[in-house]
Amino acid sequence: MQQIVLAARPIGEPKLSDFRFETVSMPTPGPGQLLIRTVWLSLDPYMRGRMDEGKSYAAAVAIGMPMEGGGVGEVIASNNPLFAVGDFVENRFGWRSHALSDGTGVRKLDADIAPLSTAIGVLGMPGFTAYIGLNLHGMPQKGETIVVGAATGAVGSLVGQLAKIQGLRTVGVAGGKRKCDYAVEVLGFDACIDHRSAADAQALSSKISAECPNGVDIYFENTGGKTFDAVLPLINVHGRIPLCGMISLYNNGALRKEPAEALSNFPKVWRTLLVNRINVRGFIITDHYDQFPEFISNITPLIQESEIIYKESITIGLEKAPQAFIELLRGENFGKQLVSVSEDPTRY
Amino acid sequence: MQQIVLAARPIGEPKLSDFRFETVSMPTPGPGQLLIRTVWLSLDPYMRGRMDEGKSYAAAVAIGMPMEGGGVGEVIASNNPLFAVGDFVENRFGWRSHALSDGTGVRKLDADIAPLSTAIGVLGMPGFTAYIGLNLHGMPQKGETIVVGAATGAVGSLVGQLAKIQGLRTVGVAGGKRKCDYAVEVLGFDACIDHRSAADAQALSSKISAECPNGVDIYFENTGGKTFDAVLPLINVHGRIPLCGMISLYNNGALRKEPAEALSNFPKVWRTLLVNRINVRGFIITDHYDQFPEFISNITPLIQESEIIYKESITIGLEKAPQAFIELLRGENFGKQLVSVSEDPTRY
Repeated sequence: MQQIVLAARPIGEPKLSDFRFETVSMPTPGPGQLLIRTVWLSLDPYMRGRMDEGKSYAAAVAIGMPMEGGGVGEVIASNNPLFAVGDFVENRFGWRSHALSDGTGVRKLDADIAPLSTAIGVLGMPGFTAYIGLNLHGMPQKGETIVVGAATGAVGSLVGQLAKIQGLRTVGVAGGKRKCDYAVEVLGFDACIDHRSAADAQALSSKISAECPNGVDIYFENTGGKTFDAVLPLINVHGRIPLCGMISLYNNGALRKEPAEALSNFPKVWRTLLVNRINVRGFIITDHYDQFPEFISNITPLIQESEIIYKESITIGLEKAPQAFIELLRGENFGKQLVSVSEDPTRY
Repeated sequence: MQQIVLAARPIGEPKLSDFRFETVSMPTPGPGQLLIRTVWLSLDPYMRGRMDEGKSYAAAVAIGMPMEGGGVGEVIASNNPLFAVGDFVENRFGWRSHALSDGTGVRKLDADIAPLSTAIGVLGMPGFTAYIGLNLHGMPQKGETIVVGAATGAVGSLVGQLAKIQGLRTVGVAGGKRKCDYAVEVLGFDACIDHRSAADAQALSSKISAECPNGVDIYFENTGGKTFDAVLPLINVHGRIPLCGMISLYNNGALRKEPAEALSNFPKVWRTLLVNRINVRGFIITDHYDQFPEFISNITPLIQESEIIYKESITIGLEKAPQAFIELLRGENFGKQLVSVSEDPTRY
């Protein structure tokens, strides 16, 4: 079997040499265990955090250990009565061609309900992040305006579509004209601003402001950096900021500084949160899995009826995962980033 | 009658020359109006914001106009059937010895229930800010730990006492040994840290941490600056930050910079809010006055039975208000800052 391990902790942007492709011996399932052959591997921005040491909401990947990641696989051997050979399953199998499991937390999938890959995309963790962030933390009201960063990404694209269904004015921010056109023409955003077309945060702020005549009630924050700088001054009184990520900063060494070095220089942000009574709600999706069944039953019919569109960017071959991940962090992917790990990529 | 007007917009710390003491002719109440003689004037940190131009939650005081402020007064003439001569009332009369009113928003006081001065202190806006910030935005749970900035101030002293009654571990931060001793010995804080005894935020953080063995669940934020820097790294997962002020920054020019200049340099703060799922809730007390009657009926008996202690710092004479206000912003007051405007200060 094949796997990709963390070879070195990256400084700034990860390099190919921070990963290592390995062939190791195939494990044999013990009592109660199943052996899974990975079909789809999900690449997600949070994985950058796992490559660093230091306190976070989940432990770092140790040097020499396989990279963490969610995936979809097929059961190819089972000593567990709850799973049969041929079952499709979803879990956190890692960047590996095969994985052993005792079945804990493993979700069985029905390929007749939705394509298997959606279990790690629009009907999986990224989609659930969009759903919880918008509905629980964003508290949307019909007629309000939402700005969504990374609007064509796995999370942002669902946030925008769900907000639109609920009667909000939806304004996306994305990198490049192609993504912005897609956001408006396919995903149905009312407008989408290309952050690359704005020289600085102030210019970006003016462009966003022009599309938000009633200001911004919700800023779905998953990018940080320039987009945050641009949107904050536009947020209305009683605005909400669901905060689930900041991809523009993950390669930024400033995140890793000791607290005392980086905290003092933002009185204006604090003042804005106060004056406009803004509610900033950091959230981690793993806290909310009690609402996962509700999410699945609400969103699945919208997928089946094509009321919700999702876009996948597929890289073929586990060995290509590091390069695809580096490009994801640069915003060079377009839609949910998947790696096809199957020997026959056309089959799933 | 006498009044104090804004003579110039301060740069940084206000100077005495930014204020002007004036004697103007006594107004005559028209139909429906009442004339009030001020007894107590309240000095509060928010007034610093009113001296600056620029967008805030309330309009700036115009140059040449009386400074804004809440006060307690006695009705000395009335053409309004709802008010009689001799009634004691509370409202925003400004830094003035006398004021006209049509009665809108004017609250009648009963001196038998509590001392009149409490209507602008522990039973007024500052106390209500403590009550709403702690209970609505702080969401306290028995056994949790709260850190309170400006612990002996008008707001912080009530936050600490109410939190203690609800079974929280309460740790104050204040300036100077005298205030810290008072916080522990009189107000009943479990501990109080003198921020002046810590060379920098990191040293302050270590001292606070030593008093918070289970971390910090709520940080009642009314100071900003060094105290914020010190507490943020100590906040537990699912912590809350009710944010109602930042007195340490009010004289700081950085607050007035254009947004694009000040926002970008705080990725570490944003990351901490995300990783620890912290809920930052900016709030302005004027949004919450529907809960004022509930506040009064809950807190009044605690005052009457001396279960809640409050401390007042009294300056005698309206002409002394500017100096007292400058000292308040420096943290040189001790307890709720009042100005006695009465001709007979011993009477009320």
